[in-house]
Amino acid sequence: MKKSYCYLLMILVFPSLISGQTGKVFDNLSMKSQILKMDRKYSVYFPPDYETSNRSYPVLYLLHGAGDDQTGWVQFGEVKQIADKAINEGVSTSLIIVMPDANTGRRGYFNTMKGDFQYEDFFFKEFIPFIEKTYRIRAEKQYRAVAGLSMGGGGTVLYALHHPEMFAAACPLSASVRTRSADRGRIAAADTAGLTTEQITNYLNQHNALYLIENMPDDKKAAVRWYIDCGDDDFLYEGNSLMHIAMRQKEIPHEYRVRDGSHTWQYWREALPEVLGFISKAFHR
Amino acid sequence: MKKSYCYLLMILVFPSLISGQTGKVFDNLSMKSQILKMDRKYSVYFPPDYETSNRSYPVLYLLHGAGDDQTGWVQFGEVKQIADKAINEGVSTSLIIVMPDANTGRRGYFNTMKGDFQYEDFFFKEFIPFIEKTYRIRAEKQYRAVAGLSMGGGGTVLYALHHPEMFAAACPLSASVRTRSADRGRIAAADTAGLTTEQITNYLNQHNALYLIENMPDDKKAAVRWYIDCGDDDFLYEGNSLMHIAMRQKEIPHEYRVRDGSHTWQYWREALPEVLGFISKAFHR
Amino acid sequence: MKKSYCYLLMILVFPSLISGQTGKVFDNLSMKSQILKMDRKYSVYFPPDYETSNRSYPVLYLLHGAGDDQTGWVQFGEVKQIADKAINEGVSTSLIIVMPDANTGRRGYFNTMKGDFQYEDFFFKEFIPFIEKTYRIRAEKQYRAVAGLSMGGGGTVLYALHHPEMFAAACPLSASVRTRSADRGRIAAADTAGLTTEQITNYLNQHNALYLIENMPDDKKAAVRWYIDCGDDDFLYEGNSLMHIAMRQKEIPHEYRVRDGSHTWQYWREALPEVLGFISKAFHR
Amino acid sequence: MKKSYCYLLMILVFPSLISGQTGKVFDNLSMKSQILKMDRKYSVYFPPDYETSNRSYPVLYLLHGAGDDQTGWVQFGEVKQIADKAINEGVSTSLIIVMPDANTGRRGYFNTMKGDFQYEDFFFKEFIPFIEKTYRIRAEKQYRAVAGLSMGGGGTVLYALHHPEMFAAACPLSASVRTRSADRGRIAAADTAGLTTEQITNYLNQHNALYLIENMPDDKKAAVRWYIDCGDDDFLYEGNSLMHIAMRQKEIPHEYRVRDGSHTWQYWREALPEVLGFISKAFHR
Repeated sequence: MKKSYCYLLMILVFPSLISGQTGKVFDNLSMKSQILKMDRKYSVYFPPDYETSNRSYPVLYLLHGAGDDQTGWVQFGEVKQIADKAINEGVSTSLIIVMPDANTGRRGYFNTMKGDFQYEDFFFKEFIPFIEKTYRIRAEKQYRAVAGLSMGGGGTVLYALHHPEMFAAACPLSASVRTRSADRGRIAAADTAGLTTEQITNYLNQHNALYLIENMPDDKKAAVRWYIDCGDDDFLYEGNSLMHIAMRQKEIPHEYRVRDGSHTWQYWREALPEVLGFISKAFHR
Repeated sequence: MKKSYCYLLMILVFPSLISGQTGKVFDNLSMKSQILKMDRKYSVYFPPDYETSNRSYPVLYLLHGAGDDQTGWVQFGEVKQIADKAINEGVSTSLIIVMPDANTGRRGYFNTMKGDFQYEDFFFKEFIPFIEKTYRIRAEKQYRAVAGLSMGGGGTVLYALHHPEMFAAACPLSASVRTRSADRGRIAAADTAGLTTEQITNYLNQHNALYLIENMPDDKKAAVRWYIDCGDDDFLYEGNSLMHIAMRQKEIPHEYRVRDGSHTWQYWREALPEVLGFISKAFHR
Repeated sequence: MKKSYCYLLMILVFPSLISGQTGKVFDNLSMKSQILKMDRKYSVYFPPDYETSNRSYPVLYLLHGAGDDQTGWVQFGEVKQIADKAINEGVSTSLIIVMPDANTGRRGYFNTMKGDFQYEDFFFKEFIPFIEKTYRIRAEKQYRAVAGLSMGGGGTVLYALHHPEMFAAACPLSASVRTRSADRGRIAAADTAGLTTEQITNYLNQHNALYLIENMPDDKKAAVRWYIDCGDDDFLYEGNSLMHIAMRQKEIPHEYRVRDGSHTWQYWREALPEVLGFISKAFHR
Repeated sequence: MKKSYCYLLMILVFPSLISGQTGKVFDNLSMKSQILKMDRKYSVYFPPDYETSNRSYPVLYLLHGAGDDQTGWVQFGEVKQIADKAINEGVSTSLIIVMPDANTGRRGYFNTMKGDFQYEDFFFKEFIPFIEKTYRIRAEKQYRAVAGLSMGGGGTVLYALHHPEMFAAACPLSASVRTRSADRGRIAAADTAGLTTEQITNYLNQHNALYLIENMPDDKKAAVRWYIDCGDDDFLYEGNSLMHIAMRQKEIPHEYRVRDGSHTWQYWREALPEVLGFISKAFHR
């Protein structure tokens, strides 16, 4: 008798334990890159009905932070459980989530200043085409989003600023967004042998979100839907606050949230359902 | 005894938790049309128990709007999730939902004035027979419904007015319903070379919902159950308001709803469970 | 033991039985009218905290239909229970609801064509000033609303069209809104002895909502917030549908709802919480 | 034993049902000010048990924005209902909320530059002492908080920066926080006849939150608990973003939130329960 009480209590108090269909995650897939001259790993989340339907799906490219790899969102981010729940509850549309490794060989999501490791070229010229050919993905801007945390938030910001024609939505979480003065310090420490001042300046400008926002052409302002989130205790508070100011001053539509928290996986796990809901609305009309 | 109390409690408090089974959607199927001289695409939703039962099911033909194709209700309309939920919660009977493409070749659900693209003929003479032969469908009027949004709402209205012997229920959402004066403008802009005034007038009359309602024979008034819904901010407010007035004046039984909203997928996603509930009652005796 | 189960069940299933503070209704108050040369009755609803606070409150003038009097909304409309619930649940702000009698002497909310019973003059020159002096009411347009059903819906429409400077919001329910042609019939039956055609025409125009909407000056279009509601089975469907069309064509902002139902107190009881929520938002900034 | 199960169940499942007691609001009280040479109005919210207990209570000074007066939080802010709910649900401790008028005579919460209207002196030397003598208030820093919106958010910030010995907590909502450059523009437009440049500069510094934060002595950094909230669509985004940056750089502990919304009463009504919960924790030990 008491047992059934306990069971009843559990049901009443933890309704989310009664879950629905579940998707699948693979965290050790790989593809050959000509540009990077090596195999590159990636993880994929497939929604619950991927195997039983033969329809195509929207896609989210979800980027990890420095110190992690393609398994970060799977292991620490609980991407499967969170996406399953969001899809089962109707918060998110059914979608595929792709998580590339940006840690092997050289860390980071961009082409290097000297051109010796062209990750951004790899991402747009090889990785996206390979993924969207390999899986049942609706390979159009309207059904493609990018999100990421920390270094991957910085990747999210610059990917969407460099390629607004590629993404319906961009969701940087706790993003590394450098102030202009931080750029000066960075360049002082970099290996710039053989580069002209103009090359260096141009590279820095093209990789500085605040510069790109301030110089955005009017007809690109509404090209991407932005959802920006950074905790009030996060060490990256300044770049994110300044990005909000810059976007407001430039009148670029964007959602901005500052919640209670710091640079932690708890913060990002709490953010992920919001991100999935936000991009689902962007995929819709 | 006490155990059954617990069970009763659970049922009373969390009916929505009793859920779980999911259906399947295919959004890239096709058939050969002799009438249109091409392959035609369509999507199908199968209810959760389609594979495990061997019964036949009622069918809803669900029509997309202008600018979309057979994937519209799947991607933006979230037909799978909404139908799963409505069926699992007992709002809807188990049914098959068929979504044809009316965008390829030439846009629209009707025969053209010049007879060079006979979509309505295709729909009734080839598509419905093909579908109801291919899948386990109860191929009778009592178990067949039609619904659609915008241009597909206009298709719904005229299909049910042209073929009241085919549908138990018709549910136009935000339907394009032309006023008579709009017809005049339309004909002025059309290619009518080689057609007589009588042919033109007849075509317009046969494709104008208000004309057909005003001239409906008394013995057809109760042939189809109507559920009409159009938001108070929808640009198609006039045709829908006039259709309501015309049906009331002609004493044609119908449900009519004006909810808060405009010409958006959010409005139609909110409408879909009502449509499924309404047609389920129409399928019953 | 089983008793406690039953109690628990009741609590779980009927949470609304556990109610909060309740207001008070007086349905047999009266004031002296110089204009109408008689005493006039009215009802008042006071919110739960009226007696214990000393603050002032917004006010809703809530008009009954033909065949009723000031007790209609109290008896059949359950105004006390519905307003208490809406206030306790936060759907409605705390407010005073005043329900005048428009049935005694001569029925209706307007001045007569011959000027022998000037109810509208009474309402604006005597009744509102008396009410707002007698009770703790914020006697400003921003905190004043008008609503009513059927004949009282017609009163609501014309009061707000005649006096947009008086009301923040107007909510006609199942309103009697005459078409222009209905005016012709009406005048044919009226006692117009001694009146010029111009006087008659002017009177009809000034008491026809469609005429007043079509001729509304641009700077009055946003003066009042409108919430219009009329069931799909109501016999007054035509006037309400045409008022929606006229307002849309004139670009007058308004909410419009058509729900399932006819000319019944059930419909109006369901409407009242919506009305209270709507006007509460209008009272806010 | 089993009975306690039932009770436990009820508490777990419907905590919000345990409710009901309501407080009182007076919105038209006044006191005589010697400093301002006039009567000053204020509103007070008393918690549900104020009359039946004889205990003393913590106090929140809740400041209105420009264009409002002491009735703003009562009418538009729904302070009674929100505080009742927060207290009944245990989110907030029982407390008194005092809302002074800063609109009469001259608008604003500060002493004027020329010293002809010394509102801040009034507030600290007359108003707080009067209030805390008149009502049963625990007149100590630990039980005193200040909050406000817009201009009242600006008042909150500077009151707490000027008088950290007076407040346990400060909660500026959508606060007007001027950038340093805005100060320059402001001074150019002000009447500064007869004032030295040093006097002007000193006045501006003492009324600029960013200046005061940057120059805060280390031993004052933890004197007040801060809760700062400003919507991502608020026109005051820049000052609030910069205040967050300045506090982070100065290592002043604070909570900061950016939620979805703009400069609206809806935003502030949503903020108020959080404010009440936050200051309740600050009142605790």
